[in-house]
Amino acid sequence: MPQAHAVPLPIRRPRADRARQVADVLRHQIHAGAYDDGLPAEQDLAAEFFASRNTIREALAVLKTEGLIDRGPKVGTHVAQHKFDHGLDALLGLKETFKGHGEVRNEVRAAAPVAAPPSVARRLRLQPGDQVVFIERLRYLGDLPLSLDLTYLVPDIGTEVLGHALESEDVFPLIEQVSGQPLGSASLALEAIPADPHTAATLQLPDGAALLMLERLTSLDDGRPVDLEYIRMRGDRITMRGSLTRSST
Amino acid sequence: MPQAHAVPLPIRRPRADRARQVADVLRHQIHAGAYDDGLPAEQDLAAEFFASRNTIREALAVLKTEGLIDRGPKVGTHVAQHKFDHGLDALLGLKETFKGHGEVRNEVRAAAPVAAPPSVARRLRLQPGDQVVFIERLRYLGDLPLSLDLTYLVPDIGTEVLGHALESEDVFPLIEQVSGQPLGSASLALEAIPADPHTAATLQLPDGAALLMLERLTSLDDGRPVDLEYIRMRGDRITMRGSLTRSST
Repeated sequence: MPQAHAVPLPIRRPRADRARQVADVLRHQIHAGAYDDGLPAEQDLAAEFFASRNTIREALAVLKTEGLIDRGPKVGTHVAQHKFDHGLDALLGLKETFKGHGEVRNEVRAAAPVAAPPSVARRLRLQPGDQVVFIERLRYLGDLPLSLDLTYLVPDIGTEVLGHALESEDVFPLIEQVSGQPLGSASLALEAIPADPHTAATLQLPDGAALLMLERLTSLDDGRPVDLEYIRMRGDRITMRGSLTRSST
Repeated sequence: MPQAHAVPLPIRRPRADRARQVADVLRHQIHAGAYDDGLPAEQDLAAEFFASRNTIREALAVLKTEGLIDRGPKVGTHVAQHKFDHGLDALLGLKETFKGHGEVRNEVRAAAPVAAPPSVARRLRLQPGDQVVFIERLRYLGDLPLSLDLTYLVPDIGTEVLGHALESEDVFPLIEQVSGQPLGSASLALEAIPADPHTAATLQLPDGAALLMLERLTSLDDGRPVDLEYIRMRGDRITMRGSLTRSST
């Protein structure tokens, strides 16, 4: 009996559950550009989703909370801001990624040699207290901050990188340029974390806003780790996209 | 002049900036299990990071806000809960991923055929209004919720999947079992979003908590898309890990 374990949808499934279902599908449609001229009227969405207008209204409230749409009594429902896609399939800097989508500029908040704490040193195959080059950049795409990037570079490469235009260039091509070697691979960790008050203010977000936190250790083609980064991305501005296969080969 | 563009660290860099730097390195150490018996005393961390005790205290406050550590006046500083690693390199279900780390069990909140909204239908290569099988599961690892998963399956496979033990099995192996075909690849989008009130309550989180939102469209080995999922993971319980290469080959 294939239906033995089926759990029928209750006749009155909580509206919040139905609203979440609708919100998820709408979120995808918004990202895909389907509603660039505004979202359909509530009654049209209700028909499309086989849902009540109250459910649609609650779904739109969810997306508004995420900062994805604006709603007004006379103006209707519009996409508030477009999220940008950042690739999970290839190792690219922001400027390389958003070529053609707008200018990436960096406010360089720090760029200098510092003594490496033991665990930073270990990951870059240095001794604790060895000098590393620390770079902190607030990165803008258009008028709004996109991410706050903390970067530790091994000293031989980092010292040379400091001589370049960090306010306009990605670090990746600079590493390749000064090392004369292509980058190889990176290991990365992605998390969702709340913004602490100071980070929130820096990224022009409310306290506790959801950030996409990327930690990335990048090696040269010869396998030497040279670049350890901690990147806080505004959750409302970036989507990471990639593909996976069932076998890990 | 390689130092031409260098921006020296100001002598009094804001403490919040220094605290963030320390918090990021500590976060990695916590995930790596370095502090499973408790974190070092403030003065030891201060020495390790070449930082003041006030900076260390602020860094620990950041990590406490993230739900990563607990602090008490007599008991010291401890890891509050371990985050679990979920792979970005291979396509695995939760149960397959956490084999050996604890029992994954699913509260099946819905499992039934529904009419597919147009954009769901399109992505699964069906007609709008065609039946799809909708499954909603609240997934636990140990005693706490880990994620809330909304799944749309093509009808031929979904109907068969409904006959299996969804409260204990991953959907991926069930799809392979009923289709007689291995899964091929998936395209995915990862975002950080705030939890709406109802989702927050369901996942036992405060309102607005950071969620890692994964949208994943999975195809069979023959290329047919069969499984569209919207997965909300608790930001404080999951880290996605993977690797990247510079060229996308």
